[in-house]
Amino acid sequence: MEVLEKYGHGGDWVSAAKRYGLPANGFLDYSANINPLGPPQSVISALQTQLQEVTRYPDPAHRSFRHALGKRLNLHEDWLLPANGAAEAMALALLALRPQKVGVVYPCFSEYAQLSEQFGARVISCYGREEHGYKAEETQLYRLFQQADLVFIGSPNNPTGILYTAEELQRMAEWTAKTDTWLIVDEAFLDFVEEEKPFTLVDQLEKYPRVIVMRSMTKMYAIPGLRLGYAIAHPEVIARMKGKQVSWSVNALALVAGELCLEEWEYERQTRELIAQERAYLSTALQQEWDWKVWPGKANFLLVRTSEEWTAQELQEVLGKKGVLIRSCAMYPGLTARDFRIAVRKREENERLLGAIREACLERGTYR
Amino acid sequence: MEVLEKYGHGGDWVSAAKRYGLPANGFLDYSANINPLGPPQSVISALQTQLQEVTRYPDPAHRSFRHALGKRLNLHEDWLLPANGAAEAMALALLALRPQKVGVVYPCFSEYAQLSEQFGARVISCYGREEHGYKAEETQLYRLFQQADLVFIGSPNNPTGILYTAEELQRMAEWTAKTDTWLIVDEAFLDFVEEEKPFTLVDQLEKYPRVIVMRSMTKMYAIPGLRLGYAIAHPEVIARMKGKQVSWSVNALALVAGELCLEEWEYERQTRELIAQERAYLSTALQQEWDWKVWPGKANFLLVRTSEEWTAQELQEVLGKKGVLIRSCAMYPGLTARDFRIAVRKREENERLLGAIREACLERGTYR
Repeated sequence: MEVLEKYGHGGDWVSAAKRYGLPANGFLDYSANINPLGPPQSVISALQTQLQEVTRYPDPAHRSFRHALGKRLNLHEDWLLPANGAAEAMALALLALRPQKVGVVYPCFSEYAQLSEQFGARVISCYGREEHGYKAEETQLYRLFQQADLVFIGSPNNPTGILYTAEELQRMAEWTAKTDTWLIVDEAFLDFVEEEKPFTLVDQLEKYPRVIVMRSMTKMYAIPGLRLGYAIAHPEVIARMKGKQVSWSVNALALVAGELCLEEWEYERQTRELIAQERAYLSTALQQEWDWKVWPGKANFLLVRTSEEWTAQELQEVLGKKGVLIRSCAMYPGLTARDFRIAVRKREENERLLGAIREACLERGTYR
Repeated sequence: MEVLEKYGHGGDWVSAAKRYGLPANGFLDYSANINPLGPPQSVISALQTQLQEVTRYPDPAHRSFRHALGKRLNLHEDWLLPANGAAEAMALALLALRPQKVGVVYPCFSEYAQLSEQFGARVISCYGREEHGYKAEETQLYRLFQQADLVFIGSPNNPTGILYTAEELQRMAEWTAKTDTWLIVDEAFLDFVEEEKPFTLVDQLEKYPRVIVMRSMTKMYAIPGLRLGYAIAHPEVIARMKGKQVSWSVNALALVAGELCLEEWEYERQTRELIAQERAYLSTALQQEWDWKVWPGKANFLLVRTSEEWTAQELQEVLGKKGVLIRSCAMYPGLTARDFRIAVRKREENERLLGAIREACLERGTYR
């Protein structure tokens, strides 16, 4: 059977609708990791009242958004490059830096390898150890830095949810000079972590001219359809990346929304609180009720391994027909056919997910 | 004085607002070539009612839009690649085909050379002859095809508005095989031409596997802020271009809007009628009242040369302060300091433009 993730990712509601015979908006989507609160009200209102922005070209220099972002991050605007999603920011880094060998730590976000190959690099890899939450060990990592021209590190890492500490990242950042390697730290999900500072190099980038931090605004602010991400790096690197960016790559509504999102402190706080609570709820339920293994992820998703009775694809199929989408992780190098990923959502939705799993197990006669 | 087009294009309302001290939405914009009717009502309504699309990832395969586009163009979907604006489609062609030498016919859209250099190609060129409306002659063109790996042809060409006939394009398409050269025909403004068929190769692309047609949906449907364009070419070429496209590059609202635009036959007809009438009106006025030279463009813009009394930049400056933006063409290779481009807009707006020029000339004492 063809995998549901035929374009490499979760959140493919078009394929899901076709496959399960339900309307495209009829799914409870646990396969994409989007803030379950939906976009901030300020963003929805602004999109409604500022729709006329579509009739003008977007600002090619993203001046207003970059200015707001610089203020929020306490960085000069020259350190920032807005992009058409974090995926574009990664592509621009690859196009600008032209690494021949790109290092990744499996299991990780599939775009690291995908984009690297797309733009002509060879992918080399190491595997995180299961018993360490799939975090790579220092010796493995150092070897990767020695061999590769550029290394991708996700933190929190997708799909495991595991974080690297600022000290661990610092060590890698020090290696970039020694081994003549670029480091991209993908912090697409860092917004969901309770405290950011102990887990990021953003305030130390002056020391590390070969480190690029990538961030996404589509997960925390629930606007993946609009596309918005950004890169933070030394101005010289940002200029090289900008040199590969197509004119007007970031659309006008994304810029409007992005600027407003940066003011949403209270919404962010509420989100983090909700995610922490519901992550614990889901994690406990899956472990206690089914005895499934749940990794101690720190982001707004959980990696889960069933205990024999299901493959991830089988479970996905049964839940899909009930209108609930999960992400099979069978195709992640380093993971197994029984691994799947779920987003963390609101309590009533999480109960619906657990109910659907319960139903599926009862139907199959595997519910204890 | 720094040029207003510091990012290489018209329509930069952020720079204009800063420079002329007016609110960003306070300009009558003749510097970008956008349908003056604004987006179709169906698009505005759909954006309002389908805003929740921003909370889901865009379909990575653009299935619904591509299907609608295939139906409208009577082409199989494999021949089509939606893009984040026509500029992205051009970038993808350059990334996929990796030409070392790219040929352009000056004066032309600055992105042809800009993108080519951005992605590592050397630009070679010939110059259209002023007395032929800046169309290149056949011998010049053939030499360009012999020398280059890829040739860009705009038709109608920006900023001259001059069209190539299907026969002329066919001749070039025949050369692509003989000279082992790719041909990109940029038809971003073809929608505004009264009759399309005599001026396009779209229905003959089966014969020409080295020809790519690029189209924009942002001009006719007045949605430049949303970003939407597409490429039409042999499926093998489309697959190669898609292989360089970043995931979710086309945002969800652009896909929603694009599909609706394809049904807007009556709006398109009204637009073409308005543009034809107002193009003639503006052209006659500028020639008769000021004795300025106006090229017989066929698109929704006109290239104009003042008769000595103004440079384009001076005129732009005076009009800018009055809240009217025009596009200086002084920086187009092949044009002069007295050349500027104006969009064709609605009668009352065109009268405001002419009024502002009249006022400017009176103030300067050059009005006869």
